[in-house]
Amino acid sequence: MSVKMDGPALEGFLQEAFPQVAEDFRIEEVAAEQMRVRLVITEKHLRPGGTVSGPSMFALADVALYLMVLARLGPVALAVTTNCNIDFMRKPAAGKDLIGEARLLKLGRSLAVGDVLIRSEGSKAVVARASLTYSIPPSN
Amino acid sequence: MSVKMDGPALEGFLQEAFPQVAEDFRIEEVAAEQMRVRLVITEKHLRPGGTVSGPSMFALADVALYLMVLARLGPVALAVTTNCNIDFMRKPAAGKDLIGEARLLKLGRSLAVGDVLIRSEGSKAVVARASLTYSIPPSN
Amino acid sequence: MSVKMDGPALEGFLQEAFPQVAEDFRIEEVAAEQMRVRLVITEKHLRPGGTVSGPSMFALADVALYLMVLARLGPVALAVTTNCNIDFMRKPAAGKDLIGEARLLKLGRSLAVGDVLIRSEGSKAVVARASLTYSIPPSN
Amino acid sequence: MSVKMDGPALEGFLQEAFPQVAEDFRIEEVAAEQMRVRLVITEKHLRPGGTVSGPSMFALADVALYLMVLARLGPVALAVTTNCNIDFMRKPAAGKDLIGEARLLKLGRSLAVGDVLIRSEGSKAVVARASLTYSIPPSN
Repeated sequence: MSVKMDGPALEGFLQEAFPQVAEDFRIEEVAAEQMRVRLVITEKHLRPGGTVSGPSMFALADVALYLMVLARLGPVALAVTTNCNIDFMRKPAAGKDLIGEARLLKLGRSLAVGDVLIRSEGSKAVVARASLTYSIPPSN
Repeated sequence: MSVKMDGPALEGFLQEAFPQVAEDFRIEEVAAEQMRVRLVITEKHLRPGGTVSGPSMFALADVALYLMVLARLGPVALAVTTNCNIDFMRKPAAGKDLIGEARLLKLGRSLAVGDVLIRSEGSKAVVARASLTYSIPPSN
Repeated sequence: MSVKMDGPALEGFLQEAFPQVAEDFRIEEVAAEQMRVRLVITEKHLRPGGTVSGPSMFALADVALYLMVLARLGPVALAVTTNCNIDFMRKPAAGKDLIGEARLLKLGRSLAVGDVLIRSEGSKAVVARASLTYSIPPSN
Repeated sequence: MSVKMDGPALEGFLQEAFPQVAEDFRIEEVAAEQMRVRLVITEKHLRPGGTVSGPSMFALADVALYLMVLARLGPVALAVTTNCNIDFMRKPAAGKDLIGEARLLKLGRSLAVGDVLIRSEGSKAVVARASLTYSIPPSN
């Protein structure tokens, strides 16, 4: 239950595989069943009033758990998101990055499942909660 | 952030309000933002092969978080489940009770949100994960 | 895109595989991508006030889409529910059966996905809406 | 059950309220309980390999049902997305816009619920399915 990719390896993967969004994310912590990812908030993530957009929070949840799966399986695997359920609970604090804390609950042969809590940096209140499922293609 | 109803009070409420199912559940622990509830497995919860049925796990998740909301609001409130999202991840252990660990993430004026991890007694592996939303009627 | 099992075949399967609950359900209609299943409401499905319990509605949604998958794949397949998301929207009418209308949206090699609308018999208002995912084991 | 805002009115609202994303969406059809919205695919929506990103599909689902609620309530209401559940089922066709077909299932005093089917333009296969809940603030 150790990770096959650490933070720098995962950020490198993100740069290569998803260059359009890689700059938005920073990996704060990687552990065997947990991952903490920062969404660096810039103008494009905001909605009028300064709140972070729903799609941006969805993206953070998806990236955080996707990288968690990748950390465990290594870069060969091409996991695909098949389901996301997200609850939006509070307005994020203005001008703060968002921190997504991913927890891997199952890493099976064909499905991975986990959840993510999203908070504004420095705050304990949960802004959004997401659970996601990934389909893992059969290895050859 | 203290609870208004403790374990015995909640079990008493269950007996009165939901006599058909009250006997199925035991409250193991009540805290300000957490609740642990046992589903006492009997014949009616099982499917062929000895596995616990999906509706039984749904019921455990719903009861655990419902009681968590009740513990905080007191017995006046009639919260109504509006959404449940549940991931079934592993087969429960045969012949074991299920333990639902509920976590309250938001208790707003009109909505309460939380999630529940379900495990077979004595096991660390998560059998199912659920998140639920309750609508709280306006108090008069 | 034709079905491999018709209504009587599916009810027969239900009797053999799930004898505890088979009597609760009647198959009203089977088509290539749609299925209509009735939950015959009895005392055990009710909560105080005469409303149908959440777990009973969950069970109806799960059975309806499960049988839809079975109708297409035939009785060999042992599909397993991996996710259910359900919205409870209205109180069911008192003393009426519930009708679940399942729609198959994807039948892949390893995953099947669909949704179900639940209504009180004779009413157009949707009582609950569910979407479900099934994992289909590799055939030998 | 008539709409209070038609297509041009809704597009005008989008321009004013969400100028960052308004250009991405076109309203194809508005009816009392249904809405069809196009996501005009450009470079920013794509992932390597030409597939549309998950957050872009989430955004389409959210905008389509949000506008459906707005069409019914008028521009005064500030509905807030509280939950989204989305199933990703197929890869979208390369180089095609996505069409979201929203269906309003409940428009209550405090909650609105509906679902959205997303397809590549000109295709019948469903690429993604989403259900969403909106909290409607009390009117003064």
